[in-house]
Amino acid sequence: MVSREQLTGTPSFVIIAAFKLLPEWAQADDSIRARAAAELTRALTEASQRVEASIYLSQGLKASADFFLRIHANDLAEAQSYVNECAQTIIGRHSLIADIMIGISKPRRYITQENSAHLNEQLNNSKYESATPRYAIVIPVKKTAHWWNMSESERLHEIEVHTQKSLVYMRCVKRELYYSTGLDEQDFITYFETADLHAFHELNAALAGIRENEFQIRCEHLMLLGAICSVSEIARILSRQSAF
Amino acid sequence: MVSREQLTGTPSFVIIAAFKLLPEWAQADDSIRARAAAELTRALTEASQRVEASIYLSQGLKASADFFLRIHANDLAEAQSYVNECAQTIIGRHSLIADIMIGISKPRRYITQENSAHLNEQLNNSKYESATPRYAIVIPVKKTAHWWNMSESERLHEIEVHTQKSLVYMRCVKRELYYSTGLDEQDFITYFETADLHAFHELNAALAGIRENEFQIRCEHLMLLGAICSVSEIARILSRQSAF
Amino acid sequence: MVSREQLTGTPSFVIIAAFKLLPEWAQADDSIRARAAAELTRALTEASQRVEASIYLSQGLKASADFFLRIHANDLAEAQSYVNECAQTIIGRHSLIADIMIGISKPRRYITQENSAHLNEQLNNSKYESATPRYAIVIPVKKTAHWWNMSESERLHEIEVHTQKSLVYMRCVKRELYYSTGLDEQDFITYFETADLHAFHELNAALAGIRENEFQIRCEHLMLLGAICSVSEIARILSRQSAF
Amino acid sequence: MVSREQLTGTPSFVIIAAFKLLPEWAQADDSIRARAAAELTRALTEASQRVEASIYLSQGLKASADFFLRIHANDLAEAQSYVNECAQTIIGRHSLIADIMIGISKPRRYITQENSAHLNEQLNNSKYESATPRYAIVIPVKKTAHWWNMSESERLHEIEVHTQKSLVYMRCVKRELYYSTGLDEQDFITYFETADLHAFHELNAALAGIRENEFQIRCEHLMLLGAICSVSEIARILSRQSAF
Amino acid sequence: MVSREQLTGTPSFVIIAAFKLLPEWAQADDSIRARAAAELTRALTEASQRVEASIYLSQGLKASADFFLRIHANDLAEAQSYVNECAQTIIGRHSLIADIMIGISKPRRYITQENSAHLNEQLNNSKYESATPRYAIVIPVKKTAHWWNMSESERLHEIEVHTQKSLVYMRCVKRELYYSTGLDEQDFITYFETADLHAFHELNAALAGIRENEFQIRCEHLMLLGAICSVSEIARILSRQSAF
Repeated sequence: MVSREQLTGTPSFVIIAAFKLLPEWAQADDSIRARAAAELTRALTEASQRVEASIYLSQGLKASADFFLRIHANDLAEAQSYVNECAQTIIGRHSLIADIMIGISKPRRYITQENSAHLNEQLNNSKYESATPRYAIVIPVKKTAHWWNMSESERLHEIEVHTQKSLVYMRCVKRELYYSTGLDEQDFITYFETADLHAFHELNAALAGIRENEFQIRCEHLMLLGAICSVSEIARILSRQSAF
Repeated sequence: MVSREQLTGTPSFVIIAAFKLLPEWAQADDSIRARAAAELTRALTEASQRVEASIYLSQGLKASADFFLRIHANDLAEAQSYVNECAQTIIGRHSLIADIMIGISKPRRYITQENSAHLNEQLNNSKYESATPRYAIVIPVKKTAHWWNMSESERLHEIEVHTQKSLVYMRCVKRELYYSTGLDEQDFITYFETADLHAFHELNAALAGIRENEFQIRCEHLMLLGAICSVSEIARILSRQSAF
Repeated sequence: MVSREQLTGTPSFVIIAAFKLLPEWAQADDSIRARAAAELTRALTEASQRVEASIYLSQGLKASADFFLRIHANDLAEAQSYVNECAQTIIGRHSLIADIMIGISKPRRYITQENSAHLNEQLNNSKYESATPRYAIVIPVKKTAHWWNMSESERLHEIEVHTQKSLVYMRCVKRELYYSTGLDEQDFITYFETADLHAFHELNAALAGIRENEFQIRCEHLMLLGAICSVSEIARILSRQSAF
Repeated sequence: MVSREQLTGTPSFVIIAAFKLLPEWAQADDSIRARAAAELTRALTEASQRVEASIYLSQGLKASADFFLRIHANDLAEAQSYVNECAQTIIGRHSLIADIMIGISKPRRYITQENSAHLNEQLNNSKYESATPRYAIVIPVKKTAHWWNMSESERLHEIEVHTQKSLVYMRCVKRELYYSTGLDEQDFITYFETADLHAFHELNAALAGIRENEFQIRCEHLMLLGAICSVSEIARILSRQSAF
Repeated sequence: MVSREQLTGTPSFVIIAAFKLLPEWAQADDSIRARAAAELTRALTEASQRVEASIYLSQGLKASADFFLRIHANDLAEAQSYVNECAQTIIGRHSLIADIMIGISKPRRYITQENSAHLNEQLNNSKYESATPRYAIVIPVKKTAHWWNMSESERLHEIEVHTQKSLVYMRCVKRELYYSTGLDEQDFITYFETADLHAFHELNAALAGIRENEFQIRCEHLMLLGAICSVSEIARILSRQSAF
């Protein structure tokens, strides 16, 4: 499987696909479980030259999803095809697809050299300097018509406030922003990785208290929270037998 | 099956019908899968003199639907009957109907020679000039009571702004508008085809920032996104065995 | 079964009951299907001296319902009992009851000889003069507390506007109004029959643009749309085998 | 089973528990049905010294519930335990619990001798004087933060208006009020019995038109409507075989 | 299993995980039921050195959950792993996970020695002095953007009012507050234990009538109510056979 840097061309697409094991999976016997774990590991480590994929363990953290995938590809159809390959594995065939979110990667819109030189430099210089992230959080965000009808400079101001509040957390929270307007119900998929959920909570609490928050609305998709583990560890957990 | 131009009389009806394969389909054996693919292909290419139908692959792009149909007919009952014929195929019988939306084709209401001559001419002259579309997007839209209670000229103005913003995208986004007020929960079904999802995203972001957006509301039906492929390719994918 | 005119006494009750066939029905064999069709036809044509019942085919038009019943009775318990008899048929036992709405018939409240003599006369003189209706539409409506707190004369005015807009459509749209406040989540069940869905759409678009629309709200029940066919034809369609 | 008057101590608790038979119940054979009816009758007539329980038939009136129980006990755990005993009967084991609402009985809060002497006397003197009630209606009600933040005297005034509108219906509508704030999603469970659904509808329409209605909001629980019949009659209906 | 005080380090995490037994569990035979009860008891009393877990019986009180767990751990992954171990027990494998809520323990934010010395002292001195709690209530709370955009001192004022209203109930209601912003859909998980549901209701009614309530909004997670019993008693009830 290619690394993300090898994916050429822009924009690249992302699919977040959440899976929930069916209750019947609890009755599967040991031999199929062993094959299932090996197969899922293989699917996520060998299968594709066209996508970059990660898996997260949400079992025990989210009622509606046992694991979710984040898949990047230059071509949406490649990512779609890869989701379907995973859904064809033993574990995929014993799961429901609980949710799918779609987005695009784009260059930053507001905080740029032209718009906001100092913040732009600070953002560019901010580095993740903490322990290897252990958790990934996906929060879909929709913004009101009022927000989109505000002037570009007014929105720039709110995003500057947002960025100012966020900067201090960049050394312990990695983030990525995907754009979804027109492709999905939400406007953005915000993706985070952290080893420090307490700091992540404080970041979100800080962002709740700025004016931008008054323009955020709910959409059909709900947030996801998953543990970052090795593919084989997640495959093992999803296919394990009762511990008792 | 007739082509759409052969359908005579106006208005014509559209049914968008989304199907989700049942988990049991994963257990179907190879012989039934082969028959299923052939049968679905036949249903979509030979069956009807009365409807024009297309199929889209949403498996891997939408959690709630594996494929959807867009069916045009001069008589709604003909389209209804055709949906039911498809639901009687092997793949249909192993699916739930996840959603159905109903609309009517009508001539443009606001941008006409009388109301807005220049924009009307620009619209009439705009041509899709890009690669063959690879994706179809269906977005149901409901408008607030406030919108419908505005004067005709005020609404005309907003639609002129909408059209102005859209014109530049017409060469890479095909669009079709269906009217649903009274026939379904939404007021409109907006249908798009494109080979360039990035441009489509930009179009939607542009339309989010105009006043018309303040009068749009959610309805029960959600948007659909599907890949445009040949009927036999979609039939093959829907009836394929595990790739691993 | 009695005709509706034979039902004596007022007010009479209505139950709208929507059924969705279970996926398992697709596996039923031919002999049970034949019995099912005959039994449903009998249930709807012979069974009752106490109710007047109609059946509508929504399969292929609504994802959540394959057919729905409209049942009138002077006594709600009679209508309830009849719904349950239908649910005990073979087709009923292979269905879920997807939704039930309950209402009462009452004399017109606003447009009367005393309140609005001219409109009242126009309404009384309006006649359905089109082809036999082919479709039935059921739209539940709830009104805001603001509406109910407006003065009687203010509401009368809005209903006069509503009626004025509607009159021209009465020759091609039949309508019936049921009252539900206190008996169900909605305030009204509006029921329509038409052979001309285009005109019906225009009627609804016209009513969207009057002030009354600002006081309408969503409720749990969704609209229904069904084809009007003979009982035996609907029974045949619901119990048919695959066409392919 | 004790009568309600024998339950000592205040406040007493109420549980409203709604059950929906599973589709599989349609396949049960005759011998289990006979046992099921006898068992349910016994459970509701003999089982408990600690609770007072009633059963209502909502099959055919509500899509989501076939029957519901109203259980009073001085101790919530006793009512809970009784719900679970009913859920352990044959009919209970073939049902889903569709909804549960919890409330407390308390003395009237607003209309008292001190607050509103005349209305209090009128309420105390109002008597149900109509035919034996045939229907029970359960309507959960939540009130806005605005309502609860109004002064006590302002709320008293609205409740006086409410009471004034209601008094005339007391001879044909029995009512009971339970308090749920903190124990459930709603603030109140309003419970009614009547033999005259038309009058009950008129009562609710009258209450829709007072200011109090502007402070009512939706909650997760939906209203229930059920027929009041003997326990053995309801047990017979729930366990009957196909009538055709 | 460790007691909560032995969990070192701050902040500690909480997971509230609600389980709903599948209908199939009703068909399980006696031998598996006996093993299931013993296994669940063992899982909750012996299994872990890393978490502190409690179980509550919501069967008969909540339609969507038969029992729920409250799990504290210094490391969220430990709590996650423990939820999954419980889900691997016999009872867990015959259940759906109906809901999961996640939060963090933190020191009090508003009522501190610096901000509000007198209330802080009163809070610190308030002691639960009633009978052993019999019920636990979990209420997720989200606050509006307006709330979070108010000044710190304005929010402090509202929380002082909240605290003032609450103080008198502290001797009969235990409470615990978890913070969820960024980790889950809600901002807070409020957890209560009481032997006196009437007092608990009065507390909630009092808090409904303060300005803070105008900033509370719904989120996807619903409240829970469960009985506090011994682990073995709950295990026995969840795995019991029909009582009739």
